[in-house]
Amino acid sequence: MPHSETPKPAIILVEPQLGENIGYAARAMLNFGLTDLRLVAPRDGWPNPAAGPAASGADDVLDGAGVFETLEEAIADLNHVYASTVRNRDIYKPVLTVTEASEAMHASAARGERTGILFGRERSGLSNDDIALANAILTVPVNPGFGSLNLAQAVILVAFEWSRTGVDLPAASTLEDDPIATKADLVGLFEHIEGALAPRGYFRPPARKRAMVQALRNLLQGAGFTGQQVRTLRGVIKSLTRPLGGNRKDG
Amino acid sequence: MPHSETPKPAIILVEPQLGENIGYAARAMLNFGLTDLRLVAPRDGWPNPAAGPAASGADDVLDGAGVFETLEEAIADLNHVYASTVRNRDIYKPVLTVTEASEAMHASAARGERTGILFGRERSGLSNDDIALANAILTVPVNPGFGSLNLAQAVILVAFEWSRTGVDLPAASTLEDDPIATKADLVGLFEHIEGALAPRGYFRPPARKRAMVQALRNLLQGAGFTGQQVRTLRGVIKSLTRPLGGNRKDG
Repeated sequence: MPHSETPKPAIILVEPQLGENIGYAARAMLNFGLTDLRLVAPRDGWPNPAAGPAASGADDVLDGAGVFETLEEAIADLNHVYASTVRNRDIYKPVLTVTEASEAMHASAARGERTGILFGRERSGLSNDDIALANAILTVPVNPGFGSLNLAQAVILVAFEWSRTGVDLPAASTLEDDPIATKADLVGLFEHIEGALAPRGYFRPPARKRAMVQALRNLLQGAGFTGQQVRTLRGVIKSLTRPLGGNRKDG
Repeated sequence: MPHSETPKPAIILVEPQLGENIGYAARAMLNFGLTDLRLVAPRDGWPNPAAGPAASGADDVLDGAGVFETLEEAIADLNHVYASTVRNRDIYKPVLTVTEASEAMHASAARGERTGILFGRERSGLSNDDIALANAILTVPVNPGFGSLNLAQAVILVAFEWSRTGVDLPAASTLEDDPIATKADLVGLFEHIEGALAPRGYFRPPARKRAMVQALRNLLQGAGFTGQQVRTLRGVIKSLTRPLGGNRKDG
């Protein structure tokens, strides 16, 4: 098991439907030492009486679960987010196997960076809007003729692989001067740039706005900006939207 | 996936109690290409109507399941048998992690030898008599404070690990339709953004302009944009510099 000082990944269930599945996921997590469970808009509210029995004793994980209205809030403090999906998506985003992602998570944890893995709704999985908030896609290489993982199975494979790949952890390296941006930084950047583009007629025709926003978020997300770089970019946007010849009014 | 010519391990459920769990195990197996399911004295007989729905489409595995009265018969054709258990046993027998056992299985399969893994009763696990028929014990290294794997979870971890260790997984891939930007693309982007920023008072004081340009170029350079993404960004810059309420004049 990794040292307890290094951050462990958060398991983020996006709009989970059945309380039982939340319990099974908590049990799967704790089997491999994961405890940071986050629920985004659980369909039947929270707490859910069906979760406890399914957790088979992983009550501390359920009791400590964070509940959020939006995915943006749920991931605000994280530096890296993986979207778990077995589907091929027409999205330009790196695709890592669960093994590769686990190794990357340990490396970033050693730098003090925080990671989360998104798991979608039981029926419909993750939306493209959800995936647009992720750095990369995490896949479990299943039988191409029969890929049928349920939520708890997907969670346990991720938790197992994270645990397995962390056994020989290298010594933690020093924190870099300029750590990678948090998701709150990035969402701030998204909203800034989208808010500046909308009144300037960028999102045309209106029917394409959602896809254009997703493309833009994927592009900015994939760049791996640091927190300082995000602040620089926000300064750039502020300048670009200033009228030509206008004076700079503030810092 | 390993070559279909080499034998794949059999999953042997010893006196399974619930039909649902047999179905879940079949589903877990087929996710990673395992199809040889063997049932020893299933408590409620066989076939069991509860198994089919739980298998979620892995019907061929259920239909092909072998049913045996004794464990001895179920393993008669096998060369190597592993007993899966998370418990410490007072039995002198080699103990392998699921990873070590998976690697050993591939090595023996390459020699044409057949392997099976025993999974015990939901309540009581494997008996010492069962374990006495095994070559070695297979363990999944779980959280020492919370080891609580159910039957299907134990099966899926074994099947996953067998699959994972049997292939040289392909390197992480991205969608290749959109190649990374050329340096000409990038320089075009640099000059576009710098040309838009300069008349809007971004580069102040003038003595810092060079350092600011370098920081901006490093930031954009490090992002690894594709050619298409650079074109998207140039559209964004064009929009941002348009006066508020102005009409879009060109594409």
